[in-house]
Amino acid sequence: MQEIGIGLIGSGYIGKTHAIAYNAHRAVFGGPLVPVCRALAEIDQQKATSAAAALGFDRGVSDWQQMIAADDIDIVAIATPNALHKEMAIAAIEAGKHIYIEKPLALDTHEANEIIAALEKHNARHAPLVHMLGYNYLCNPMISLAKEIIASGELGTIVHFRGRHIEDYMADPSIPFSWRCSKAVSGTGALGDMGSHIISMAMYLIGPIVSLCADTDIIIPERTDSNGAVKRVENEDQAQAMVRFASGVMGFLETSRVATGKKQGLGFEIVGTKASLEFDQERMNELRLYETSSPNGRKGFKTILVDSNCPDFKAFCPAPGHGLGYNDLKIIEVNRLMKAIAEGAAVPVDIYQGRNIEMVIDTCVLSASERAWKDVR
Amino acid sequence: MQEIGIGLIGSGYIGKTHAIAYNAHRAVFGGPLVPVCRALAEIDQQKATSAAAALGFDRGVSDWQQMIAADDIDIVAIATPNALHKEMAIAAIEAGKHIYIEKPLALDTHEANEIIAALEKHNARHAPLVHMLGYNYLCNPMISLAKEIIASGELGTIVHFRGRHIEDYMADPSIPFSWRCSKAVSGTGALGDMGSHIISMAMYLIGPIVSLCADTDIIIPERTDSNGAVKRVENEDQAQAMVRFASGVMGFLETSRVATGKKQGLGFEIVGTKASLEFDQERMNELRLYETSSPNGRKGFKTILVDSNCPDFKAFCPAPGHGLGYNDLKIIEVNRLMKAIAEGAAVPVDIYQGRNIEMVIDTCVLSASERAWKDVR
Amino acid sequence: MQEIGIGLIGSGYIGKTHAIAYNAHRAVFGGPLVPVCRALAEIDQQKATSAAAALGFDRGVSDWQQMIAADDIDIVAIATPNALHKEMAIAAIEAGKHIYIEKPLALDTHEANEIIAALEKHNARHAPLVHMLGYNYLCNPMISLAKEIIASGELGTIVHFRGRHIEDYMADPSIPFSWRCSKAVSGTGALGDMGSHIISMAMYLIGPIVSLCADTDIIIPERTDSNGAVKRVENEDQAQAMVRFASGVMGFLETSRVATGKKQGLGFEIVGTKASLEFDQERMNELRLYETSSPNGRKGFKTILVDSNCPDFKAFCPAPGHGLGYNDLKIIEVNRLMKAIAEGAAVPVDIYQGRNIEMVIDTCVLSASERAWKDVR
Amino acid sequence: MQEIGIGLIGSGYIGKTHAIAYNAHRAVFGGPLVPVCRALAEIDQQKATSAAAALGFDRGVSDWQQMIAADDIDIVAIATPNALHKEMAIAAIEAGKHIYIEKPLALDTHEANEIIAALEKHNARHAPLVHMLGYNYLCNPMISLAKEIIASGELGTIVHFRGRHIEDYMADPSIPFSWRCSKAVSGTGALGDMGSHIISMAMYLIGPIVSLCADTDIIIPERTDSNGAVKRVENEDQAQAMVRFASGVMGFLETSRVATGKKQGLGFEIVGTKASLEFDQERMNELRLYETSSPNGRKGFKTILVDSNCPDFKAFCPAPGHGLGYNDLKIIEVNRLMKAIAEGAAVPVDIYQGRNIEMVIDTCVLSASERAWKDVR
Ligand SMILES: NC(=O)C1=CN([C@@H]2O[C@H](COP(=O)(O)OP(=O)(O)OC[C@H]3O[C@@H](n4cnc5c(N)ncnc54)[C@H](O)[C@@H]3O)[C@@H](O)[C@H]2O)C=CC1
Ligand SMILES: NC(=O)C1=CN([C@@H]2O[C@H](COP(=O)(O)OP(=O)(O)OC[C@H]3O[C@@H](n4cnc5c(N)ncnc54)[C@H](O)[C@@H]3O)[C@@H](O)[C@H]2O)C=CC1
Ligand SMILES: NC(=O)C1=CN([C@@H]2O[C@H](COP(=O)(O)OP(=O)(O)OC[C@H]3O[C@@H](n4cnc5c(N)ncnc54)[C@H](O)[C@@H]3O)[C@@H](O)[C@H]2O)C=CC1
Ligand SMILES: NC(=O)C1=CN([C@@H]2O[C@H](COP(=O)(O)OP(=O)(O)OC[C@H]3O[C@@H](n4cnc5c(N)ncnc54)[C@H](O)[C@@H]3O)[C@@H](O)[C@H]2O)C=CC1
Repeated sequence: MQEIGIGLIGSGYIGKTHAIAYNAHRAVFGGPLVPVCRALAEIDQQKATSAAAALGFDRGVSDWQQMIAADDIDIVAIATPNALHKEMAIAAIEAGKHIYIEKPLALDTHEANEIIAALEKHNARHAPLVHMLGYNYLCNPMISLAKEIIASGELGTIVHFRGRHIEDYMADPSIPFSWRCSKAVSGTGALGDMGSHIISMAMYLIGPIVSLCADTDIIIPERTDSNGAVKRVENEDQAQAMVRFASGVMGFLETSRVATGKKQGLGFEIVGTKASLEFDQERMNELRLYETSSPNGRKGFKTILVDSNCPDFKAFCPAPGHGLGYNDLKIIEVNRLMKAIAEGAAVPVDIYQGRNIEMVIDTCVLSASERAWKDVR
Repeated sequence: MQEIGIGLIGSGYIGKTHAIAYNAHRAVFGGPLVPVCRALAEIDQQKATSAAAALGFDRGVSDWQQMIAADDIDIVAIATPNALHKEMAIAAIEAGKHIYIEKPLALDTHEANEIIAALEKHNARHAPLVHMLGYNYLCNPMISLAKEIIASGELGTIVHFRGRHIEDYMADPSIPFSWRCSKAVSGTGALGDMGSHIISMAMYLIGPIVSLCADTDIIIPERTDSNGAVKRVENEDQAQAMVRFASGVMGFLETSRVATGKKQGLGFEIVGTKASLEFDQERMNELRLYETSSPNGRKGFKTILVDSNCPDFKAFCPAPGHGLGYNDLKIIEVNRLMKAIAEGAAVPVDIYQGRNIEMVIDTCVLSASERAWKDVR
Repeated sequence: MQEIGIGLIGSGYIGKTHAIAYNAHRAVFGGPLVPVCRALAEIDQQKATSAAAALGFDRGVSDWQQMIAADDIDIVAIATPNALHKEMAIAAIEAGKHIYIEKPLALDTHEANEIIAALEKHNARHAPLVHMLGYNYLCNPMISLAKEIIASGELGTIVHFRGRHIEDYMADPSIPFSWRCSKAVSGTGALGDMGSHIISMAMYLIGPIVSLCADTDIIIPERTDSNGAVKRVENEDQAQAMVRFASGVMGFLETSRVATGKKQGLGFEIVGTKASLEFDQERMNELRLYETSSPNGRKGFKTILVDSNCPDFKAFCPAPGHGLGYNDLKIIEVNRLMKAIAEGAAVPVDIYQGRNIEMVIDTCVLSASERAWKDVR
Repeated sequence: MQEIGIGLIGSGYIGKTHAIAYNAHRAVFGGPLVPVCRALAEIDQQKATSAAAALGFDRGVSDWQQMIAADDIDIVAIATPNALHKEMAIAAIEAGKHIYIEKPLALDTHEANEIIAALEKHNARHAPLVHMLGYNYLCNPMISLAKEIIASGELGTIVHFRGRHIEDYMADPSIPFSWRCSKAVSGTGALGDMGSHIISMAMYLIGPIVSLCADTDIIIPERTDSNGAVKRVENEDQAQAMVRFASGVMGFLETSRVATGKKQGLGFEIVGTKASLEFDQERMNELRLYETSSPNGRKGFKTILVDSNCPDFKAFCPAPGHGLGYNDLKIIEVNRLMKAIAEGAAVPVDIYQGRNIEMVIDTCVLSASERAWKDVR
């Protein structure tokens, strides 16, 4: 087993999940590479030091650029607000480090293209770098199973895809203004935050989206920030879009951060001519399958529980139905990265695919503002 | 208790449900009026006679016009294919009979207007007739409860409505071509058949729909009819629409007759700023409610089972949770009609509201063909 | 079609359900016999008259004995408190009428034997009478489907049966003392009331129960009656029993009238070596089936919705999943009675089987009082 | 932060879960103590070495006694088959090490008493050792929430507890004979394996069990071992028991390893006079609560999703409903151990409580063999 040095930027919500995953990865997957938590970059030295200690990193640093440059860092993981992704990603690429960027890739397609340009420039002269985005929900063994079922043709012709990622974390008007409400720091609102997850899943399972018609809303127009200042919310609280996939399949996507009662409302329903498939992340260890091939009187939606027939599961537990949690998805994602580096395996979402997700988001914004169908390009 | 004479046209799928409801109504509601099954009209005398006997009607007739004219008929119930509704409704109105028309009201808004014209002409000179459409799902005590909850303001401001009525009764390509696939006899496909139900429910609960953008699909372009002839399917198998209600609420509606696995997939999710409400007709005795007012650690979607707090329920059974069935909704609907006639009470959907539903459907067709947002008018 | 005259005694909770069923039966099943509501007996003439009118009976009478004697009465339906069943049943038998007795058959096995003695005495000299008990839950098409699945051998060897009928209708201590709390009028408490339902279902699906060990509790020892008098509750609020079936299968049965939150908690889980089957009356149109024969990665509990593959369903509605309600079970039960009279078909529970249920209940009482396993005999 | 050395014996199913938990603990909880994976003992050096590498231990050893003696080992974790627990636990105690023993504590009460004797002997002369058993399901934040709800009195008087842990991992007769089927190595079958979990939960939530009546079954009497030899299964495949708690509450417990379709069927239903509470480990991030205090028309079972109101959850993720997995329970359990060592906090199940669980199991065996109620003592 060979160690590989991690430098993580950001120790907030998802930064901590990264840390848990790096620490747990070896005991779960036992290799091929062992991620080692070398350095954690945060906004100031005090926060960096304490977070590094708590999260199990060798050192905390206040200067992420310096960290990127360090010899013992092989992978730069970027877990900072969206507006910082581009600069950090390009710096890491230029330093010749593999990059692991939290979703969404950047503020918009334009920024995504800049990152890609940097990558292509680097790769033209050097050994190609591995690049992966943090769309961890795609790493769920149930989603892998869903993908296998789709690939097998068991669904027949797919005729409809309904997807959504709706939560209520901003439903309460007293929740303070955060970076997620600012166009400059976050780009879009619900669309980039959770919408990107369901777009990634739609494309992962069904293929490219070629045209769409979207609608968006700001429900709570003002929020008070942590200093007591009332600020205007600059991006959408909820959005929905009718889409058409390249295959012609009709689809519908929805996202919201004000969907009262939903805590992790990422899910889909796929209708096929021979079978249908349903998933809800709030019950992430279940997949629901209806098969027209069942005999009469024995047809019905079947709740399949995760077990060792689902990719990656048995690394966690030999016992069926002994479900995974949200953090476990990140462990699998880290393993994908390890396998990409060690064996050249494909990752669920690389930066090219990440850019495609940005294009869908940008097209949603355009379509909503023009109230018209738009092609994705 | 006073008897009131029913003349029913059509003894197919929904005609039988009518018959069950008329027969059961008195024992359930005990009055005020007692519907009496006087005559059943069918396409020929033999079918009329045998259906009348089986369904408990005094006589079977092959000529619906003659039946309408009969003195002992106070209410004409129309349970024939859509294309026949207009002519039959107008004839009944002209004969001065109350009308109870199966949904959808007619083939399109134009026909609906003709019926309304006949009604207004009649009512200008005679005692006004009662008119009610067969949107029986609105009579579910759980829907009445939902309406009460919305009216109470418990949801806060409503911010989203997702509704759908999807089934799979035409999903199998070997299912024969029927009148429902013909533009001339049915008008639209899934839109008029099940779409009308979810549109009626959306409007019943949230109010008028003012603009929309729709998309439609024919999934199975040809079917074989009962004579073995291959025929082109002339109307949509599935449709979806983003909508805006008059109140500004964002909404989404979907319908399908090819949604593999769904048997009675009529349902909605209403998001409010204070509470959210969910319903699924496949579990028609349940309503799911999430209240932000619950204390921390005690919040969650609550499954409310039907009981005597839900309008109309206790007429069926004194015991909570001893659920109703699909046919029971028609018994409640018949009771609405009785109360409208006896007491002037409002009905869930009268022909004006039925016309509004037609307008939404027509706008969906237009929007889908032009691939653009359209105002409903 | 031939008419058959019904005389019903009692117009309370279940008496009304009888009335609805008699009225609806023809329109649903269309024959072979048509039950006609001739007479309703109640405790006094006023109640009898008004109930007869409301429930659609030709006449109301205050003297049930006189009603039994009437020539136009072919079937005597007994829907009065348990303590009255014996006397009424014997009188009806002696008058040569078919009997349809609400569950439980009687106060105890001893009374059940008296009824059987009267029946055998009558049948020795006359055309045998049809006798059926009101265990309507057994008439659910999903239960018929469950019985078919069991009979087919699909479950393999059955290894466990867990059943229960728990409700909370007496959970609130302020609910008044009623006849159900009195030993003299009701016999047992939860055991005879709801326990009898789950015992009937266990025996219907798995076979005779040969031994058991029971435990019982009175949770609310005193209640105030409708006159404000505080009275001692004389029978059990909850009971549970471990059982062994004649086949050797291990089982567990439970009943309660104080099970906070349960409204119609009649259900079971049957474990077989090849498949398992689950049912919950609160979702009475669903049956859950797990089949080990499904391929790996495709195993799971399947929710089968009622459809025309389930016996009796298509008489109500041609459309799958358009579920039945509680009252519909009584319509099916009435049809069973019609077929028993017209064609000699077997009924779900006759008085011999009803006696066997009494024996299990009596054994529960004995076992609980002696705190020991007891054979059923 | 202070490091504390772990020596783990056994790297099978649950040994690996231990390893994941030790590795992840710091990043999740950030202290107070940091468990360090020092040594892993396995049956031979090769297995020890490779497992140590895969699971992140500093060294692998083939001699557990030697490992226990090592100075850098502060905690001995025992994750070997049941028959080895006693000897290993006593050796660790005598070496003055804290002990963390997988459930069940031992083969029976007699062995449990021997361990307790060793502990008391040690503690009489030395600083008391911390002792904790691996009943990880009790560490679920939802179970902590359930315990809080019970303690708050919100349920009113508890009147019934139904619990079970049923799985189907031995349902297939072709599953080989394993140590779990042998009396000498495992003691009981389903009772000690999964029954111990539901017994621990019943006692954790409701209190001591004072009497019971049990029934047991061997369903598959013979299995083939990994060498192809047909062997007799020596302990029960399924068991059930009616119980009475010290508080007088009636209860029922069930366990099975042949419950076709159940993968992690650990769950309970607690009925109180004011509220009821339900849990199912297959949906481990949910708790169902019915409150009679809800207004009429708003009562129903509420599905509470895990969030930061549930103890321990926020260490994993700040976002509500972003559920935990099975392995996360072990991380919380490890944290309980750390807090017990660092701060003297109580553990969910210590060896005294573990002995009480053994007593209940032993009483089940006795009761089943004598077919009689037995007091637990
Ligand atoms: N994959 C997933 O499911 C999730 C992904 N995310 C993504 O992760 C990213 C971060 O989001 P959260 O963790 O929720 O945000 P957060 O606000 O909780 O944490 C961001 C962290 O970055 C640090 N930071 C900011 N500027 C920095 C700088 N210049 N140098 C070093 N550190 C800096 C902040 O101090 C903070 O600790 C976002 O792009 C978000 O979209 C977030 C949550 C879930
Ligand atoms: N409210 C609801 O949930 C439902 C409403 N419907 C509506 O009910 C109407 C009928 O639909 P189904 O019952 O499904 O159709 P169906 O095809 O099962 O029955 C139609 C009946 O009308 C009879 N009929 C046709 N032409 C006639 C004529 N000239 N005179 C007398 N009888 C004639 C036919 O012989 C047939 O028995 C449609 O408008 C449909 O949209 C249908 C099903 C459910
Ligand atoms: N199958 C099922 O699911 C159910 C069965 N039942 C059974 O039905 C029977 C009646 O129970 P409920 O209807 O709940 O009771 P209830 O108290 O609601 O009604 C009993 C009716 O019998 C009438 N009655 C009493 N003495 C009479 C007499 N001497 N002559 C004429 N009428 C008399 C009463 O006035 C009352 O209207 C019981 O044996 C009960 O176990 C009750 C409910 C459900
Ligand atoms: N807390 C929980 O949920 C669970 C607890 N357990 C408990 O954990 C214990 C182990 O069970 P599993 O891990 O399922 O068994 P297993 O058979 O998967 O693993 C046992 C391991 O112990 C090793 N071992 C046996 N003898 C040894 C010795 N003398 N020295 C060193 N290593 C030795 C074996 O080589 C094997 O790797 C049992 O007491 C079981 O009841 C098991 C599974 C789940």
